[in-house]
Amino acid sequence: MPVAKNLHTADPHGSRPVVTLTTDFGSSSPYVAAMKGVLLTINPELQLVDITHATPPQNIRHAAVNLADTVFWFPPGAIHIVVVDPGVGTCRRILAVRSKGHYFIAPDNGVLESILRASTPDSVVELTAEEYRLDHVSPTFHGRDIMAPAAAHLSLGLGIGQLGHEITDPIRLTWPAPTRREAEVLGEIILADSFGNLITNVTLADLKHLRQIPQVVYGEGERAKWVTTYAEAEPGDIVALLGSSGGLEIAVVNGNAADTLDARAGTPVILSASRTDREDGSS
Amino acid sequence: MPVAKNLHTADPHGSRPVVTLTTDFGSSSPYVAAMKGVLLTINPELQLVDITHATPPQNIRHAAVNLADTVFWFPPGAIHIVVVDPGVGTCRRILAVRSKGHYFIAPDNGVLESILRASTPDSVVELTAEEYRLDHVSPTFHGRDIMAPAAAHLSLGLGIGQLGHEITDPIRLTWPAPTRREAEVLGEIILADSFGNLITNVTLADLKHLRQIPQVVYGEGERAKWVTTYAEAEPGDIVALLGSSGGLEIAVVNGNAADTLDARAGTPVILSASRTDREDGSS
Amino acid sequence: MPVAKNLHTADPHGSRPVVTLTTDFGSSSPYVAAMKGVLLTINPELQLVDITHATPPQNIRHAAVNLADTVFWFPPGAIHIVVVDPGVGTCRRILAVRSKGHYFIAPDNGVLESILRASTPDSVVELTAEEYRLDHVSPTFHGRDIMAPAAAHLSLGLGIGQLGHEITDPIRLTWPAPTRREAEVLGEIILADSFGNLITNVTLADLKHLRQIPQVVYGEGERAKWVTTYAEAEPGDIVALLGSSGGLEIAVVNGNAADTLDARAGTPVILSASRTDREDGSS
Repeated sequence: MPVAKNLHTADPHGSRPVVTLTTDFGSSSPYVAAMKGVLLTINPELQLVDITHATPPQNIRHAAVNLADTVFWFPPGAIHIVVVDPGVGTCRRILAVRSKGHYFIAPDNGVLESILRASTPDSVVELTAEEYRLDHVSPTFHGRDIMAPAAAHLSLGLGIGQLGHEITDPIRLTWPAPTRREAEVLGEIILADSFGNLITNVTLADLKHLRQIPQVVYGEGERAKWVTTYAEAEPGDIVALLGSSGGLEIAVVNGNAADTLDARAGTPVILSASRTDREDGSS
Repeated sequence: MPVAKNLHTADPHGSRPVVTLTTDFGSSSPYVAAMKGVLLTINPELQLVDITHATPPQNIRHAAVNLADTVFWFPPGAIHIVVVDPGVGTCRRILAVRSKGHYFIAPDNGVLESILRASTPDSVVELTAEEYRLDHVSPTFHGRDIMAPAAAHLSLGLGIGQLGHEITDPIRLTWPAPTRREAEVLGEIILADSFGNLITNVTLADLKHLRQIPQVVYGEGERAKWVTTYAEAEPGDIVALLGSSGGLEIAVVNGNAADTLDARAGTPVILSASRTDREDGSS
Repeated sequence: MPVAKNLHTADPHGSRPVVTLTTDFGSSSPYVAAMKGVLLTINPELQLVDITHATPPQNIRHAAVNLADTVFWFPPGAIHIVVVDPGVGTCRRILAVRSKGHYFIAPDNGVLESILRASTPDSVVELTAEEYRLDHVSPTFHGRDIMAPAAAHLSLGLGIGQLGHEITDPIRLTWPAPTRREAEVLGEIILADSFGNLITNVTLADLKHLRQIPQVVYGEGERAKWVTTYAEAEPGDIVALLGSSGGLEIAVVNGNAADTLDARAGTPVILSASRTDREDGSS
């Protein structure tokens, strides 16, 4: 892919660089503020935005899905720090990645899977340059002592290559992909979002493969009604629709599907070309 | 009322325009960050402030009360986005309102009732101009695709009239108003705040109507002690006082009234002129 | 101590002054936003950062520990507002403190104990100057009506002495200090952090007193394994290590110690020089 223009290098001080933070520290944790203090000490002009700090503890996959849904809504040049880091204090690497004009700072544990999958990155660097860390690095809080300083220095115009050396083997997550058959797509539920909507791994591309409005069945054979908007169904109806992130979701209209349906991460979701069904005589 | 000076038009870039966000997405939701990404992509200079994202799901009245307590503490020119939107995806309108020098972007479902009630607005516009939306509008996330871009464009100095056309019939909420009798005010509890204090619909004006310190009774005849500050009572006492927003509150000193009293939204609250009581021989 | 350079006076408008907020209002409270509105009305250029709003209600000691862990990561000149204020509405004083180049605005109730203990402050001022308050001061919300305006005026370059008059007797907390014996340190657990790690009052200095790697016992004689990083133990192990704030913590690897161990604030923690133990024949 073409190398994205490095907006910060071109004009590092022309506006207010964005740094986002995604952690599993919990919504009430003061440790996020310690990271922000380090960031603002190095670059007082930053625009800091919390994505979420309520990632379930050490749930790398959950953080990866949330990143996919949010980061590319930020302006090019934004720097995204992700601290979901069960390996802190081990020899696991810490990465800086540039992809689609955005920067990511995260432990090398698969949490950037959705970013690596969205597009081949321009650059994947292991953070080894000690001059861009705090003087004293705690063995238990690399988010504050290594990742925050790296992000702040990038925001000042530092080239990503200055943070360490390029690597080619970032850790990847196995990611459940739907199976496409001639008249069926076999997917699964990935997670419940904060509304209780059940996000699946089925995408718009899978739906186009079926070339018609599908029948949607989940779990032991329960049906969800295909709709384009909630307005096409009644409160309490179980519906399937393309969510705001472009993936298929199963939802209860004006309700919480995660709380009320017998479905969770891993529950199968089957989309079938409904015309075929009708030819079989089923309703 | 006189037309408020449009500070942004006068000096759109001279400082950092404030945009506040109020939603029912939940405190841990990453979807708020997607809205912030859109806002900062259009105007990187914004000062973004969360009011609350813990509005009970689809509780329009709760959001309306929170707005009344907070928005006018912000500087004139502030833009307040409210996404409590059970009708997303239906043909419900989305509004931009200018009142008292502030701007509001919200679905037309009554959530701005407290604003419309505080003062006759200068302008109420239905958002119809497609050039100020994202290129692709999801049927399930108008906060990100329509409301955030509209707010960001206002912050850059766009006139509110450019966003669509004036309307005169925004949806209003029926709002419980206290009943004033000669020596009594009959009100009710509206909601519990985050301290568990019970906020009522009785205001300073109602108290002035009584022309003396009232006796306060709630529910089935329970008494609350009238105080000016918590310091006038002991821990555990049930007190009634004018809260920081100017409304009558029932509270438990150093405690949580919502958890410990038999009272909730809708519970009646009666204020009576106490001198009359004493003449009746009651204590 | 030498008087810290007052960065704001030297260059009040050269960058974006930081104001942090620590309260017990709850993560979902809209009242924090009212304070931010007042702050931004007086100084629109502020960089606002939340430390936490989930301090347990009126828990002064908890807030004091969180402040110690976070505030000095911010740049010099930062202004820290602390509203954990059970005495609001009483005649308790409100203080502005300058220490180590940072400013603190808080009620005079001991919540600044960790700051006063870290270093002798340059200045401790009781806020009495009425010109730096809001015109109307509510008896129940001094955070909004007195503390936020004082912080905003400091950020604009006001000298701390303009806010009131110097005092010499701020209220102090008795703070449990560990007892050092020849081959032992007797400490206790102070609180659980948001990961469930149990923070003790034992510091690096206490460990140096023992001059060797200690044996760590808590509660009724349960042992915790001394480690430098989590990587030295297995998931589920009970470990003791120096946390990111420089204090001894007891943790469960990849788990939540507060939920799974029989230990809480006040539980004793004993560190003993392990070589002595071995000479005694114990394992």
